[in-house]
Amino acid sequence: MTTTSRNRRAVITGVHAHVPDYVLTNAELAAMVDTSDEWIVTRTGIQERRILKGEDQGTSVIGIAAVRGLLEKTATRPEEIDLLICATTTPDLLFPATGNIICHAVGATSAFSYDLQAGCSGFLFALVAGAQFIETGKCRKVVVVGADKMSAIIDYSDRATCIIFGDGGGAVMLEPTTEEVGIVDAILRTDGSGEPYLHMKAGGSRRPASFETVAAREHYVYQEGSTVFRFAVKNMADVAFQIMRQNGLGPDEVAFLVPHQANKRIIDATAEKMGIGSDKVMLNIHKYGNTTSGTIPLCLFDYESRLRRGDRLVLAAFGAGFTWGAVYLRWAYDGK
Amino acid sequence: MTTTSRNRRAVITGVHAHVPDYVLTNAELAAMVDTSDEWIVTRTGIQERRILKGEDQGTSVIGIAAVRGLLEKTATRPEEIDLLICATTTPDLLFPATGNIICHAVGATSAFSYDLQAGCSGFLFALVAGAQFIETGKCRKVVVVGADKMSAIIDYSDRATCIIFGDGGGAVMLEPTTEEVGIVDAILRTDGSGEPYLHMKAGGSRRPASFETVAAREHYVYQEGSTVFRFAVKNMADVAFQIMRQNGLGPDEVAFLVPHQANKRIIDATAEKMGIGSDKVMLNIHKYGNTTSGTIPLCLFDYESRLRRGDRLVLAAFGAGFTWGAVYLRWAYDGK
Repeated sequence: MTTTSRNRRAVITGVHAHVPDYVLTNAELAAMVDTSDEWIVTRTGIQERRILKGEDQGTSVIGIAAVRGLLEKTATRPEEIDLLICATTTPDLLFPATGNIICHAVGATSAFSYDLQAGCSGFLFALVAGAQFIETGKCRKVVVVGADKMSAIIDYSDRATCIIFGDGGGAVMLEPTTEEVGIVDAILRTDGSGEPYLHMKAGGSRRPASFETVAAREHYVYQEGSTVFRFAVKNMADVAFQIMRQNGLGPDEVAFLVPHQANKRIIDATAEKMGIGSDKVMLNIHKYGNTTSGTIPLCLFDYESRLRRGDRLVLAAFGAGFTWGAVYLRWAYDGK
Repeated sequence: MTTTSRNRRAVITGVHAHVPDYVLTNAELAAMVDTSDEWIVTRTGIQERRILKGEDQGTSVIGIAAVRGLLEKTATRPEEIDLLICATTTPDLLFPATGNIICHAVGATSAFSYDLQAGCSGFLFALVAGAQFIETGKCRKVVVVGADKMSAIIDYSDRATCIIFGDGGGAVMLEPTTEEVGIVDAILRTDGSGEPYLHMKAGGSRRPASFETVAAREHYVYQEGSTVFRFAVKNMADVAFQIMRQNGLGPDEVAFLVPHQANKRIIDATAEKMGIGSDKVMLNIHKYGNTTSGTIPLCLFDYESRLRRGDRLVLAAFGAGFTWGAVYLRWAYDGK
């Protein structure tokens, strides 16, 4: 393919995010299912989450808003985008890809685009996939979107899952650099033995949608919470620690952990294993809950003003599959 | 990330494929809907297609069989696989990824894996994505699967679509090389304005499955055939021609066109634009119909014995999105 360079890295040159307006509070959930604000906050750290309302509104609504904002703040013309990868677990349609829909809406007429599915680790997997296209020189501007409308697949009579998930997402711009910033290392992992504990029973080729699958409420997130929690705590903490070790990074050198926002206790355990204090942990789960592919770009966006060029960040995620991973990168610019 | 080399290319070092046993003939379809063998053969070139029967059988059944065969014939231990990308429009489940399920079944415990959605161009997009991971040196053995159980999303009372699609798939092994074989060039394209003409109306985040969507038969392939045909003929032919031109390839130098098998007339138009005779066109649509992500690996597998080291191949596809593309590669080994 195109010539590659030993020194070329992919670097994030901008981030933007979007959440819908509607705020679903713990109080509103407590009126719907047998739960309470105190129970939810203690177990998960979540106070509220956003919900995308309205007929025929899919995940692309979030992705389009995020990408439009990203193009504006990076002063990028849409036709300059070479590739757009959309990580999502809740595509608008089973086909075509939500990435295709986003490109069309924003006018990214030169880009090719596809969707990537790796559960809650989807954004990290897409970030690393996008980085490869930059490193080889095949692409110069890659947009990586992580967005989900989890409310489309949540059973609001199941108090175990409906309190956790929310809608939202974000997007980053990847470009090449030969400077001392950008994506330095990544560890990505999969263990398909996790399938029984976190999945959606129907709507795929095993069990296509039917009156029976709808009646059996099989088109929703099914999660065996305690098993998933156990795997998530161990694997997300281990992989974050491993990427520090293999890059010779001490806790003092890490500016921020950017963790997938599934549960505050998983995040705390990861920070503890890394040896970093809570002041170095990006956290917005209280505002948005778990937005699946959206959590990491939403964090980067919320903390962007505090980031400085050269900052060492460790991104970490765990999700359905099971899939998990960590990315070590150096931030490229001073936030405003 | 890992050091990259100017000369490293990704090369296909093996291919395997799998189709289910059940043969759905034109005669059987003519008993189900108002059509005939003569009508189907004239319009599409399809004589029969395979169908995956049985409870709870998803696309992974096809992918697992293809990958197992691939590991055996390439004498690869499953734990040597670094990455498995599964291109599919009919994943087993909406999550976790079918790639995760395949890895678990075949024992690919060291691999990370994800699914890629780009309609009928999915295999080409996944092949190019996998090649990037090889070129950067991030991975040494990448398995790219293209598989679909289209019968899960076909309305067998719609004579326009049920005659076209079938179940099947295949897998290739990608490895690094510095020799004069491997993937030389790729052109991938997306145009999201194609969405209205080829899509599935329900089952995504816009219109989650409900009694209404099932009753309205919205969980099936919706296609405006004549519009899709027009775009496919033009774009698949143009992109195949373009990749020849930008690599200075004359018709005599092309050993084979490996076209997505959607319709024999689209394939014929592509070969004509390239200036190559029908003896250089891989064709198995008569046996399998359109298996979506499965067509190109199924072709490579069927024609493997006729391929010779150094053969110049042009792979081309067009599908939902719209997405389309072409890959120019040189084959690595003599078929047996």
